[in-house]
Amino acid sequence: MSSTRKLTGIFTPNVVPLHDDGSINEHELRRYIDWLIDAGVHGLYPNGSSGEFTRFTAEERQRIIKVCCEQCAGRIPVLAGAAEANVTETIKACELYHEYGAAAVAIVSPFYYKLSPESVYAYFREIAIHSPIDVTLYNIPMFASPIDVPTIKRLAEFERVIGIKDSSGDMAFMIRMIKEVRPMRPDFCFLSGWEAALVPMLVMGCDGGTNALSGVVPEFFRHLYDLTRANRLDEARELQYKMLELFDAIVYSADFPEGLRVAVELRGFNVGPSRQPLSESQQIDRAALSRVMQCIIADFGYAKPPAEGCAPRTGKIDADRIQQITQGVLARLKERGAL
Amino acid sequence: MSSTRKLTGIFTPNVVPLHDDGSINEHELRRYIDWLIDAGVHGLYPNGSSGEFTRFTAEERQRIIKVCCEQCAGRIPVLAGAAEANVTETIKACELYHEYGAAAVAIVSPFYYKLSPESVYAYFREIAIHSPIDVTLYNIPMFASPIDVPTIKRLAEFERVIGIKDSSGDMAFMIRMIKEVRPMRPDFCFLSGWEAALVPMLVMGCDGGTNALSGVVPEFFRHLYDLTRANRLDEARELQYKMLELFDAIVYSADFPEGLRVAVELRGFNVGPSRQPLSESQQIDRAALSRVMQCIIADFGYAKPPAEGCAPRTGKIDADRIQQITQGVLARLKERGAL
Amino acid sequence: MSSTRKLTGIFTPNVVPLHDDGSINEHELRRYIDWLIDAGVHGLYPNGSSGEFTRFTAEERQRIIKVCCEQCAGRIPVLAGAAEANVTETIKACELYHEYGAAAVAIVSPFYYKLSPESVYAYFREIAIHSPIDVTLYNIPMFASPIDVPTIKRLAEFERVIGIKDSSGDMAFMIRMIKEVRPMRPDFCFLSGWEAALVPMLVMGCDGGTNALSGVVPEFFRHLYDLTRANRLDEARELQYKMLELFDAIVYSADFPEGLRVAVELRGFNVGPSRQPLSESQQIDRAALSRVMQCIIADFGYAKPPAEGCAPRTGKIDADRIQQITQGVLARLKERGAL
Amino acid sequence: MSSTRKLTGIFTPNVVPLHDDGSINEHELRRYIDWLIDAGVHGLYPNGSSGEFTRFTAEERQRIIKVCCEQCAGRIPVLAGAAEANVTETIKACELYHEYGAAAVAIVSPFYYKLSPESVYAYFREIAIHSPIDVTLYNIPMFASPIDVPTIKRLAEFERVIGIKDSSGDMAFMIRMIKEVRPMRPDFCFLSGWEAALVPMLVMGCDGGTNALSGVVPEFFRHLYDLTRANRLDEARELQYKMLELFDAIVYSADFPEGLRVAVELRGFNVGPSRQPLSESQQIDRAALSRVMQCIIADFGYAKPPAEGCAPRTGKIDADRIQQITQGVLARLKERGAL
Repeated sequence: MSSTRKLTGIFTPNVVPLHDDGSINEHELRRYIDWLIDAGVHGLYPNGSSGEFTRFTAEERQRIIKVCCEQCAGRIPVLAGAAEANVTETIKACELYHEYGAAAVAIVSPFYYKLSPESVYAYFREIAIHSPIDVTLYNIPMFASPIDVPTIKRLAEFERVIGIKDSSGDMAFMIRMIKEVRPMRPDFCFLSGWEAALVPMLVMGCDGGTNALSGVVPEFFRHLYDLTRANRLDEARELQYKMLELFDAIVYSADFPEGLRVAVELRGFNVGPSRQPLSESQQIDRAALSRVMQCIIADFGYAKPPAEGCAPRTGKIDADRIQQITQGVLARLKERGAL
Repeated sequence: MSSTRKLTGIFTPNVVPLHDDGSINEHELRRYIDWLIDAGVHGLYPNGSSGEFTRFTAEERQRIIKVCCEQCAGRIPVLAGAAEANVTETIKACELYHEYGAAAVAIVSPFYYKLSPESVYAYFREIAIHSPIDVTLYNIPMFASPIDVPTIKRLAEFERVIGIKDSSGDMAFMIRMIKEVRPMRPDFCFLSGWEAALVPMLVMGCDGGTNALSGVVPEFFRHLYDLTRANRLDEARELQYKMLELFDAIVYSADFPEGLRVAVELRGFNVGPSRQPLSESQQIDRAALSRVMQCIIADFGYAKPPAEGCAPRTGKIDADRIQQITQGVLARLKERGAL
Repeated sequence: MSSTRKLTGIFTPNVVPLHDDGSINEHELRRYIDWLIDAGVHGLYPNGSSGEFTRFTAEERQRIIKVCCEQCAGRIPVLAGAAEANVTETIKACELYHEYGAAAVAIVSPFYYKLSPESVYAYFREIAIHSPIDVTLYNIPMFASPIDVPTIKRLAEFERVIGIKDSSGDMAFMIRMIKEVRPMRPDFCFLSGWEAALVPMLVMGCDGGTNALSGVVPEFFRHLYDLTRANRLDEARELQYKMLELFDAIVYSADFPEGLRVAVELRGFNVGPSRQPLSESQQIDRAALSRVMQCIIADFGYAKPPAEGCAPRTGKIDADRIQQITQGVLARLKERGAL
Repeated sequence: MSSTRKLTGIFTPNVVPLHDDGSINEHELRRYIDWLIDAGVHGLYPNGSSGEFTRFTAEERQRIIKVCCEQCAGRIPVLAGAAEANVTETIKACELYHEYGAAAVAIVSPFYYKLSPESVYAYFREIAIHSPIDVTLYNIPMFASPIDVPTIKRLAEFERVIGIKDSSGDMAFMIRMIKEVRPMRPDFCFLSGWEAALVPMLVMGCDGGTNALSGVVPEFFRHLYDLTRANRLDEARELQYKMLELFDAIVYSADFPEGLRVAVELRGFNVGPSRQPLSESQQIDRAALSRVMQCIIADFGYAKPPAEGCAPRTGKIDADRIQQITQGVLARLKERGAL
């Protein structure tokens, strides 16, 4: 019942492409997975926040894991998001994903209700005892009940609990966790879900990251990871700085994860409409955001700039959207000889 | 397609009794509903936060509404919590609950992700257009994306949206809503989910409340409501003051809604274990809390005090628990002649 | 050493008019005080948040109190803000303001550092023991360390502590305080600093308010207070609703208390420039805000509308500013025959 | 008017020793400064949050800077905290501290009122224009109005503004600042005030730190800094981990900065009573905390353990206090032959 290997490297919390009628586009999902593997990511993390797990039914969540496990087919490990409505349902999902061949499951702390540390402990304890598959805790305090350091230590006493994915972005919290847990569990893995601080997280002892942006520029993340591991920090630092503009455009431009879906689209995948409806003004915003992001990704060398060229960017996404739209309108007017 | 009546009075967001194996105890749920109706509540609100709707499967949530509608059988209206994983599933639930005979549905703002007002609008807009049954918005900013006043105004333009249940506890917010919405929609109903300020909410224009505590002391809430409506404010104020100790014991003593479940138990219902597991220390705390609450409810005249009597209370639930346990131990020692 | 009278009614936390060089405009301050007294406010509360106490030197704060006490000359009581850098300096201020003839002092909870309840207690305890003048606690959790209910109870044991001014705006908190403290100290006074909920606060047991807006429309506040005390709640409720637009324009339109200063200016007082500098864009915003506020105050009947008339208002102050400016420009163009 | 040197390395935000009557103990302050310089810190930062600047009068704050400048006497630079009640007073302090020979001033963002970025800009702009001495911004969002990245960029256009001290502890924020500001101002200095993440902050581009703990274990901080600069990251990482226990004991054990004062005392300085009074129970807690901290500092090798020995520590300071007190009691009982 021991864990056979440690989760290390870049895990992509993949988005789920949808058909226009809202159903899962399995063909596109499989094509996307192949592309991610080819680009060098170390693992897949379906049914995470990027994957909009709360917007699917229980049956759909199962289907997503099945497709991911099938398509990965052992090429890279699948860390399967397995949180369901309650402990019993979650354990059933653990059993199923074990059958499907997932390497481990990731379970977000209970959400909606804000639970105390003792309740968070009681919840994961039950799962740790009954799960037939290795479990990673998923701490994302902006969305779910926080998992504090003493609770992590208590849970690390269960062999089944093999790691934590932390999306708090709190460097000192990560250092504190590693300091407390690693001596008692040298095999415990620490994954950071806050790519805006990925290089320093790795430098201070993290084993890897589960990073939404790695679903957009996987080559870049693999490179950043390899440089950091090779202790080529001057180069890694530059990549960390460079990543910020894309990060901000994806995370702060629209209600997460819609900005991420826009970006994945620009890499050539038909992600389709989100399950969270967009108002009319949001649809216009999305189109403008797409143009700006195309310019950003073009700077990474992973996309062509838009036909009308790229307006200078200010780092403020709202202003950039308006600039880029203006540039597009001017370009079209010129084409027509109107300017 | 117009709404035939306004929701007014006290709606009880009922807990769901469970068997020891975690399945729904329908018999006890029906018995509890009958008791609530006999005690004078004006309506039922199943699948709310008190009803732990997130801890049930979609099928179970449906079953709960079916049982509630059947058991109420038109005696009092059912305001059915209908939020599901996404807009499509939520609309399906609206259709089903319409068939079941619910008076209206209540739909919590999207949670987990923190959505912008524009996204909250887009979400409810879709439901307002397609629901065959009247819709009340459910604003509970401590758990879900907030619904702000401009968004409420925009949504009040849909005839299908007939009201809001607000659990923010923010008096000024409620006044602002009523001021903005009532002139354009005199039929719009405002229900407060924060009983610690229920009397002033009613005085300032609310139509009623959806109050967890009304599931524990329904007679008391009916009385408080009637007094306030009769403008007997001096008496109503005293009840409002009196309510606070029970409110604090229920809301701040344990992770909500476990304290509520303890209290309902004391009124003679077998609520069974929650779906959120309790650690060992939490189980001990729960037993101690139950004793203190029995003393509080005894002061309302709705329960006998515990056999060992009631220790004086300090208003700090943690201290009170220890005091009451000590009193119990001393009482038992005396019984045995050891003191 | 007992307090001779309870503080009741509307206390105005007055702004401090300044000369263009930033020094205190005593003449205008005295004229303003006379006007407030004539308009019927029950007391003055200088050196509050509205009075920008933190932006004056210790010497200036003393001077402000001296001028206020002199000018009130016993016509209405002065509740003097006396918080200084530390306990020793604060007690010195208490002594001085006692000499000046203040009725009581108000002392804000320590700020900058966020102190624990035990530290807040220790701070006020020291003052309660040594102050020669009655003390009211000032709870404003958005700016300073919160004073919780158990701490208020402990401090209410000191005869010298005679009340609390609470600007939390939390109705349930106020009810809880009154319930806990009034039985042990029937003379303790509760003043609400959140006028957006003033009527229900009074209904539930408050003795009065310390309300920034009463420095702009004192007649209106006196009327609202009198109606509520006379139990004419239907009328009082309408005034409470009506007040909201002005409240929002003052509190949410600019960094507090700049909006308040703009409004006082419109009642005919030369408040001069704030000590917090305004950027160029803020100066333009301020001019636009002034126009909108003039329209709002005109609706109260206390000012003439601007010469160019008033554009319809949306309740969103940003939009309203642009509308009103446009209206002004159009009016001027028409005047000149350009339209 | 250009800045002659960049601030780099470890700056100690020193506490201010007091006599029993609350007045400044200048002799002890001078002795402490000498000790810090001998231990290798790169600079001094008086009148910071650790120095309780808000608890002194304006005159006392001046005196503190004078003593620090005199005592440093050019051996290390003094970064003088110069924030006063308003812009005019702050500029006067800048002028005075320039005369005193400070290397630069540090000015905290306006506090009490929560100001918008535009107001924060307007405030610092005025100071940047008029100060005769270089200015560093001080960002500490837990206590004062936050200074956001666009505002920092705007302020970096003033030659007089030469750096920022950031105590947010937010790694991604620091990376974002450096990325945005360094290209336009290569001389701009970035100092981190959150020592729990000091090593990664330095790795990612910071020039140094202003760290309260460096006032307790200056030798350790100098060593950590030198190792990091020498790229000996494996060793630096161990020191970063080791530092956490002391950090937590100082920052989370008592209302900041009382825990820091306790720790400085243990290095042999008579810091005296704080200006924030302690309740009786807080005085007992302080004594217990002192024992635990003595054990922690003994582990660093900078103090002898207490005579009664050190109880094993759990990392939870509350539990540790009780353990250590128990150990002390047992030791004394043994001494007397009672055990």
